[in-house]
Formats: sequence, structure tokens, C-alpha cells
Amino acid sequence: MEYFLSAANKVIDRCRLLAGFTEEPGGITRKFLSPPMHAVHDEVGSWMKNAGMEVSTDAAGNLRGIFRSDKPSAPRLFIGSHLDTVPNAGAFDGILGVVIGVALVELLEGRRLPFHLEVVGFSEEEGVRFGVPFLGSLALVGHFSEELLDHRDLGGITVREAIQSYGLDPEKIGEAEAGPDAMGYVEFHIEQGPVLESLKVPLSVVETIVGQSRLDVLFEGKANHAGTTPMNLRQDALAGAAEWIGAVEREACATNGLVATVGRLEVRPGAGNVIPESAQASLDVRHAYDSIRKNAVSGLLELAEEIAERRDLTVTAELRVDQAAVPMDRQGTSALEAAAIATGHRPNRMNSGAGHDAMILARRMPAAMLFLRSPGGISHHPEEAVLVEDVAAALQVGLKFLEQLEASHAR
Amino acid sequence: MEYFLSAANKVIDRCRLLAGFTEEPGGITRKFLSPPMHAVHDEVGSWMKNAGMEVSTDAAGNLRGIFRSDKPSAPRLFIGSHLDTVPNAGAFDGILGVVIGVALVELLEGRRLPFHLEVVGFSEEEGVRFGVPFLGSLALVGHFSEELLDHRDLGGITVREAIQSYGLDPEKIGEAEAGPDAMGYVEFHIEQGPVLESLKVPLSVVETIVGQSRLDVLFEGKANHAGTTPMNLRQDALAGAAEWIGAVEREACATNGLVATVGRLEVRPGAGNVIPESAQASLDVRHAYDSIRKNAVSGLLELAEEIAERRDLTVTAELRVDQAAVPMDRQGTSALEAAAIATGHRPNRMNSGAGHDAMILARRMPAAMLFLRSPGGISHHPEEAVLVEDVAAALQVGLKFLEQLEASHAR
Repeated sequence: MEYFLSAANKVIDRCRLLAGFTEEPGGITRKFLSPPMHAVHDEVGSWMKNAGMEVSTDAAGNLRGIFRSDKPSAPRLFIGSHLDTVPNAGAFDGILGVVIGVALVELLEGRRLPFHLEVVGFSEEEGVRFGVPFLGSLALVGHFSEELLDHRDLGGITVREAIQSYGLDPEKIGEAEAGPDAMGYVEFHIEQGPVLESLKVPLSVVETIVGQSRLDVLFEGKANHAGTTPMNLRQDALAGAAEWIGAVEREACATNGLVATVGRLEVRPGAGNVIPESAQASLDVRHAYDSIRKNAVSGLLELAEEIAERRDLTVTAELRVDQAAVPMDRQGTSALEAAAIATGHRPNRMNSGAGHDAMILARRMPAAMLFLRSPGGISHHPEEAVLVEDVAAALQVGLKFLEQLEASHAR
Repeated sequence: MEYFLSAANKVIDRCRLLAGFTEEPGGITRKFLSPPMHAVHDEVGSWMKNAGMEVSTDAAGNLRGIFRSDKPSAPRLFIGSHLDTVPNAGAFDGILGVVIGVALVELLEGRRLPFHLEVVGFSEEEGVRFGVPFLGSLALVGHFSEELLDHRDLGGITVREAIQSYGLDPEKIGEAEAGPDAMGYVEFHIEQGPVLESLKVPLSVVETIVGQSRLDVLFEGKANHAGTTPMNLRQDALAGAAEWIGAVEREACATNGLVATVGRLEVRPGAGNVIPESAQASLDVRHAYDSIRKNAVSGLLELAEEIAERRDLTVTAELRVDQAAVPMDRQGTSALEAAAIATGHRPNRMNSGAGHDAMILARRMPAAMLFLRSPGGISHHPEEAVLVEDVAAALQVGLKFLEQLEASHAR
């Protein structure tokens, strides 16, 4: 274990080092193909080369390092995560998975496997710069559409121009696509939530990346004077929305595995002495089973209508996102779990409430994920952290996973 | 009644005419001593002169027309309301009371009374330009403090400068104060609420102008990922605020005459996929009895604390306004009511949920108010209206009130 702890410390130091490559000094912000991404590519690329990998950057800006098998016709296992960050991010979301990938190759100490091992640092997952997430992994699965190249960032620069000015050729994005040798994808990622910490468990395999519904729900009533309108003659949009927000919470608490959130609520006209005329709420509902999620959403919309009718309000809802759940590969997940058990860890099994590159990779190849506990459940925040013991455990599990795969390929 | 209907039509036409004197063509906006106020003073002043009144503008910008008694030592009855408006106002809030005052003098057809009748068009009641309401009536009761002259509008102009550039002398504001001959104040005003319409009653006397508490109530929890944070591990500030908003409504509905409103709710960070970290609510509570209002406020704050504690949130409250209720003069109110009954009307008795100049005048002299029904309960809106029959009834009641006062002074 001493061995893995030392490797884990190196992983954490490297993540902290990469955090220094940022668009905004004092914080961590590194968007798709922003200038500091060059330094990240140089740094991680040099680690890869030192570990015996062939390094390149594909036309979508993904950093790719191949640790070749001796057999040229061997299948290829991908290990990866993303190198971009949200604004004012922490040092581990995404990056940790790439650095662990490199560390696993290092832990092989030059021993070649019966499969190629390709570590990918995806250029884009967060969707910050162009409002579209997963640009990097979409290219790897061949789903980077021509139309995406014309999206513009806030400065008016298109994806095409961003790729060109990074020194890459947008016409070659097709070449980023994984070949027929792809055998699977594994992603190590911080949980970004409080579950593992609350269970006091360092690791978890991911069963399913949950599906998401996002809606805008608008309650409309009548603005009136807060002093002159008796309670029984009001059509208070906020009072209706508040009742519904309570129902959203109760519904989610009553349904195993369901999360439902009203994160945004805009009240108009928004003056202390005026009864609210309208209240526009966001609704975010997630579950590993699409049918449960869809039932919950329609139940909540029915409830909104009941509330509105009783209160002489109107309610309208607009569906913004309806994204199906993505189950991780059963065999890959079981293999990760077996590797954990074999090394003395008892991994949790859970669903991922957030989207990850593995969700996109699953369109093309068997994909599996291993979560590392997030201290305080904190993510997308400078205080985002990871425990060195947990990283050591992940490295141990990762190495065992590769060894078990090696053994099964040798047979 | 034909007689009063014709006078009422004239009153409404005059209000519509005055609505044309606005800072913004297409809407009605007329702030304290804004340029269109000159035209209003000229127009209303000419009506006053034609009705046999002496007209002046005091240093606070109040238009004052005196219909003198034959007895120089007679007491003085004030009838008035305000000439300023909120932005994008209706044509009747305030203005109607001034125009009715002039119409009542006209209905006297030159007959002098045993008391002076002074119609006042207050320069400022809404508090729009300088953030302080009641500038006009404060001057009339001698409460226009020196300090008020230094308040600045959004353009950086002080009250002093506004008075000067209107052509008045701010040093003479003291002379605006009512003298020892003041015997009382009567204000005709639209209800600005839906009560009279719902009761199908045209008029109401006002018993009390309710007291007001205004607070800011801040719920604070913890921002977290809406996908990765299970329901039982959340500290959702909006869910807490929503529960409390429901309680505010229930408390107000359960307490006779109480109104309680959350008109503003600001949710941070306000992203659909982030559990709200904070929710800042305004609270506006009004009642005719200060003790009931204060009990309600402290009960609601206790409830907020209970909710916060149970949900692992914190709550802090700041009291912004604590304004006592102002009862109208009993005798004046009864006299208005008697005049209504004598002319075949059955006035309602109600409290005013909004502040009015009568609230300030009551500091100095007996004050009474008569409300006219507001169609649709609409006010502070271009659709604000008044029914010609209701104005006719108000004129009839007003004239009877003056005649009864005349009779009692003759005795």
C-alpha cells in the first residue's frame, strides 16, 4: 500500500500543478482550447512520453497517449476523462481521471499488455465555452457533427476558428474517431456528491448515469397591491409556486433514487409591496430509470395544474431537456468491482447524478466508471478535494483491473 | 342624480385631461415638481379661480385654492389629495380627490359657507422621485424637515434645487404649514383594491390606515449539485423559503384583516442544476391593530427559525419598516357616513391597506377618507378606472357632508 500511496501523492501533486494552468490567475478556469490548455497538453504529454506512450492531439483537441501492446492487432482499452474545467473550478474534476490513467501506465513499469492502452484527456466536457458539452468525447465516438463547428462563444469565435487558432485542423475531426479495435472505456472520476462520504466508503462503481428532465414551469396570477388586496381576493403566483416547490420536494423524497430540484425561481414584478404576478421555476428531475423519471415529471406537472386551478392561476411548462439514462456496461462494472474486492476494497454501487464522458463513450463501446469519494461532497468549487488514501485505492483497483483483463486475454 | 352624474362626467373628463400632462408621452408619469406639474397647476388653478377660489402654490409645490367664508375668523376645512403619480400610472390615483374637491366648490354655486374650504393638490405622495413619500402633506403639517431638502433624485438634483428650479423658494416651506384655524381634512380616493367591487358597493368610509411591517428574511443553506446530492443530504434554501411562504399565507388567511405578502424572492446562485444556497424574501405585513401585526410578524419569524432548524439552514431577518396604524377621526368618519346614508347610499366601512395623505394630515387635525370603488381592483396601472355613478355618489355625499357641517356651524 505504501507503493500506491506514494503514487497517489504524485497524482494529487500533478493535479495541483495542472490547476496552475488557468485563464484567471488566483482561480482555476480552463475552457475548451483556451491558451492554458497548451501548457496542460505539454505537461501531461511529457509524462506520457516518459511512461513510454505515443502522444498526439487530435483535431478536436483531445490529448491522446497510446501505450502500445506488443501485438499490433490487439484491441484497445481507453482510459480517460476531461481536461477542461468550469469557471472557478477545483483541481480534480476530470483532470484526476486523466492523471490516474497516466499513473496506471507508470505503475505497469514498462510491461506491455495484450491490449493497447490509450489514455485520453478530453478537450471539452463542461459545455462552458460554447454552451454544448462533451465536444471532446463526441469526436471520439464520431458524433461531432459539422453543425457544431459553427457554434460561437461569447466572443463570437466559432468552434472551427478555436480549433484552427489552437493549431489544429477542423477538417480532420473525423480522424479523432475510435477505430474498430476499441474494446472499452474506463473513467475514474470524483463523485462530486456527498454519498460516499456519508457512507464512509472511498470508492464506488457506477451502475447508471441517470437520465435528466429539465423544464421551465411558469405560474401566472395577477399583480396587485400588497396592502389593499385581502388574502381571499389574491392570485399570488409566488404562493402557488411555493406550494408546488414543497410538493416537488415531497415527491422526490418519497421516490427511491429520485432527485428533483428547483434551482431557479424568478418572481415578477419582484417588489416587496406588490403581489407577485408571475413566478418562473426551473425543474430538474433525475433518475436511473427513465420511466420513473418521466412519471415523476408528469405527476409534478399535474400537481402544478391542480394548484394553479385551485388558486385561479395559470401554469405552463416547457420541456428543455429530456435525456435518457445511460447504463454503464455490466461486465465492465463487474470487472471493476471484482478488482476492488480482490484488492481488499468494498466498493459501493451507485448511480451518477451528473453526466460524464463515459455517457458518450457508451454509445460506441462498453463503458465503466469508478467514483472516488468527494470530501464534503464539494465539487465545481476551489475547495474540491480528494483523499490520498482514496486515490491510492483507485490506483490499486485500476492496476488490478488491468491485470485481470491481461489475464483474461492471455487465456 | 342627473345633476351629479353630469358633474361626475366632468370630473372624469378633467382627470383624463390632466393625465395628458406627463413626463412620458403614451403613459402617465408625473413626479414631484416635474415639468408637466406646471401645466397641472395652471389647469386646476384656472378651474379653482373660475369657481371663486384664491389660488397659490406653496413652497413645497402644493397647489392651494381657498374658497373663503364670509367670516374671516371662520375655521378652515381642507379637502385634498395628491397630484403626482407613480411611473406608468392610471388617471385617478390622487388626482381624483383634488378634482372632486374643486367640483364640490363648483356645486356650491358661489354659496359661501360658515367655514373656509381649502382644496389642496399635494405635490408629492408617492415617493418616486426622492424615495421619500408624502413630501407635500408633510409640509402642510409642519413636518417637512430641513434634512429632506438635501435628498437627491437619480439625476443628483436635491429637493432644494427641484423646488428652486420650479420657481419656488425652499426657505419658505415653513409658510406652507396649516394655521390654527385648521378644523379637519377630508380625502376622496379610489380604493386601489378589489373589496368594494367584490361587495358591489360604490363607496366606503375608512376607519384606519393600517400599520405596516416590512422585513427582509434570508434563508441560507448550501449550494450543491442538483444531480449528485440525494434529497436527504440537502440544505436547500429555496425549499425552506417555500415552506415558509406557505406558512405566511396560512397565517394571514387565519387572522381576520391581516394581509401578509412575500413580493420579492431572490434565489442564489439561481442555476437550474444547482441546489439553492440562499433565498432572500421580502415580507410585508399589514393590519389595523399594531399589536396583531406585531404578533403576526414575530410568529412568522419564529416559524422561519423552526423551519430553518429542522432543515439545517440558517435564517436572519432584518426589520426595514415598522409603521404604526393611523385611525381616521371617528367624528369625521361618522359625519361622512351620515352624509352617505342621508343621500341614499350605504357606505362600507373598511381599513385602508395603503398609505394616504390623510395619514399625515391626521397628525395635525381630524382626518377622514371616502373610498370610491376601483373597477377590477386595478391601480397604479394605465387601466385604473372609476365608475361615473360612483363619482356622482361621492359628489352627492361630499356636498351633503358640507351642508351638514354648514348646518352644525349655523346652529
